[in-house]
Amino acid sequence: MRDRMVNMVREVQDDICSVISSIDDSDYREDEWRREGGGGGRSRVFSSGSVFDKAGVNVSMVHGTLSEEAAAGMGGGIGPEGNLEFFATGVSLVLHPSNPMAPTVHSNYRYFERGDRESEGSWWFGGGADLTPSYLFEEDARHFHSVYKKICGRHAIADYERFKAWCDEYFYNAHRKEGRGVGGIFFDNLNEGGKDACFDFVKECAAGFLESYIPILDRRKEMHYDDEQKVWQRIRRGRYVEFNLIHDRGTKFGLRTDGRIESILMSLPLEARWEYCHEVADDSDEERLLAVLRKPRDWS
Amino acid sequence: MRDRMVNMVREVQDDICSVISSIDDSDYREDEWRREGGGGGRSRVFSSGSVFDKAGVNVSMVHGTLSEEAAAGMGGGIGPEGNLEFFATGVSLVLHPSNPMAPTVHSNYRYFERGDRESEGSWWFGGGADLTPSYLFEEDARHFHSVYKKICGRHAIADYERFKAWCDEYFYNAHRKEGRGVGGIFFDNLNEGGKDACFDFVKECAAGFLESYIPILDRRKEMHYDDEQKVWQRIRRGRYVEFNLIHDRGTKFGLRTDGRIESILMSLPLEARWEYCHEVADDSDEERLLAVLRKPRDWS
Repeated sequence: MRDRMVNMVREVQDDICSVISSIDDSDYREDEWRREGGGGGRSRVFSSGSVFDKAGVNVSMVHGTLSEEAAAGMGGGIGPEGNLEFFATGVSLVLHPSNPMAPTVHSNYRYFERGDRESEGSWWFGGGADLTPSYLFEEDARHFHSVYKKICGRHAIADYERFKAWCDEYFYNAHRKEGRGVGGIFFDNLNEGGKDACFDFVKECAAGFLESYIPILDRRKEMHYDDEQKVWQRIRRGRYVEFNLIHDRGTKFGLRTDGRIESILMSLPLEARWEYCHEVADDSDEERLLAVLRKPRDWS
Repeated sequence: MRDRMVNMVREVQDDICSVISSIDDSDYREDEWRREGGGGGRSRVFSSGSVFDKAGVNVSMVHGTLSEEAAAGMGGGIGPEGNLEFFATGVSLVLHPSNPMAPTVHSNYRYFERGDRESEGSWWFGGGADLTPSYLFEEDARHFHSVYKKICGRHAIADYERFKAWCDEYFYNAHRKEGRGVGGIFFDNLNEGGKDACFDFVKECAAGFLESYIPILDRRKEMHYDDEQKVWQRIRRGRYVEFNLIHDRGTKFGLRTDGRIESILMSLPLEARWEYCHEVADDSDEERLLAVLRKPRDWS
C-alpha cells in the first residue's frame, strides 16, 4: 500500500500541476527535499502567473520514529503500545487565486501507518477538499459539493452527509465562531472495509479535484472587482492564516515532525490583513458570506 | 495588590495613549468589554494616523474559574490543588509603525493570582518589552536594551542578563530557527522579595516604556524607504503573525479563557505577506537583520 499510495499522490501532483500551469500561464518552482529523520517530499509552487497569487501542490512520504509529543498529538489509531515507528504519505494542495471572486481551495489525501501496520488502528487514510470563497456564489458551493457527493455515492465506505458535517466541524475557526469556508468533505481514521476499499475511494476523490474546482475558477477568474473587494479578500485570508496556524492538525503535525517549513507554510496566502474590529455593511455581499460561515448550509 | 496593579496599568495605558495620539496625530478607538466568566478590559487601538499602521494598548482584569485545560497551560505556580479560581490583570501593547525603518514594539506587564493568593506559587508577576525591527539599526537595539538594563539595575530582584536571555528564548520562532526581533527583557513567575518589591519593579518597567521606544521612533518614522523595503516589512510581519499564533502564551491564554478576540488579536499587523522560499541578497540590509535574529547579540 505504501508504494501504491506514493505512486498515486505523485500522479495526482503531476496532473494537477499540468492543469494549473496551463491556466496560470506560468511554471512552478519545484523543490525536492529530504527529511532528516527519514523520507522527504516534492513541493511545487506557482507564484508568478496571471491567475494565482500563490498555488502549491506538495507530496511527501515521511517515516521514522515519533517523539512522544508527536505521537500523543497524532490522532487516529494509537497503534501497538510503545512502538513509535510511523510512515505517512500524502498530497496536499492550496490554491489562492488573485481575483477575489474566485475562491481559495484546499485538498489533501493521506495514508498513515504506525507500529505493525496491520492491526486495528495501526493504519488509516484521511483526506478531503474544501472551498473558501471571499464572495459567495451559491452555484459554486453547490457544484463543489455535488462532485464529492457523487464520488461518495460510489463507495460503500463513504458517507457524504457525515463527511460534509465533519468538514464543517473541522475547518472551524472556533475563536471567531465562523467556518473557514463553505466546506466540502473531510474524513480521518478511515479503515473500514480494508486498505483496498479505502484506497479506491481516496484515489477517486483526489482524481475528482479538477472537476470540482476548475469550472468554478473558470467562471470567476476574470470577473471585475474593485479595491475594496481586494481588501476584503485580504481580511478573509487573514482568517485563513488564523485557522492554519492556530487549529490545523496537518500544520501542527508538520511542525512537530520537523517537516520542511516552506512546504508546510506554503498554504499561507501571499497577502493577509487584520483590521481592528472590521465590520461589514448590512445587506452587503460581505455580510452574505459571513451568514453562511456562521451557519453552515446544506449544499447538496 | 489587585487594586494597585489595576490602577497602575490603567495609568500606564492613559500615559502611553496620550503620547501615541500626539505623535500619530490621531485618536484611538476605545472598547470597554466584559468577559462572561468575570471581569473585562479596555482596548484602545489607533489605525487612522500618520505614523502607525496599527497601534493597540489594552488593559484587562479578568477573574473566575479556570477550565482544567486552561489551568494546565497557565504556567507559573500551580496554586493549591483543586482550587481553580484565578485573577489576572495586565497591560499589553503592540505598536506597528508604517515606516519599515521604524521597529514594531511590544510590551506587557501582568499580575496573576490563583487559589489562596498568598501561599508560594499562588501569585506572580510577569512582563517585559521587546523590539522587532525590519531593518537593523544597532544604536536602536542598544538604546532599547540600555533603558531596561538601567531599570533592572535599580531592583535587587531583577537580573538584566537573565531577563535578556529569557526574552531571546521566549520570543523565538523555533520553526524558523530565528528570533522574532532583537529582544529586550522578559520575565515570568516573579515572586521573589514579596509583592511590593515585584510591583515596584514592574511599575518602573512599564513607566520606562516611552523612554525605551519613543527616541527610536523619532529617528525612524520619517526616513525614506522604497516599495521593496515595504514588501520586506510585510514579510517580517508574517513572521510576527507566526510567532503570535503558533507560540505566544499570552495569545493562547486569551483564547483559552474566552478573552475578547479583537483585543487578543489586536497584536497582529495590518498587513502581512508570505512569499514561498523568499531569500535575501548577500550582504544586504535584509541579510544583516537575519544574522542577528539567528544569533542573538549582547546589546548592553
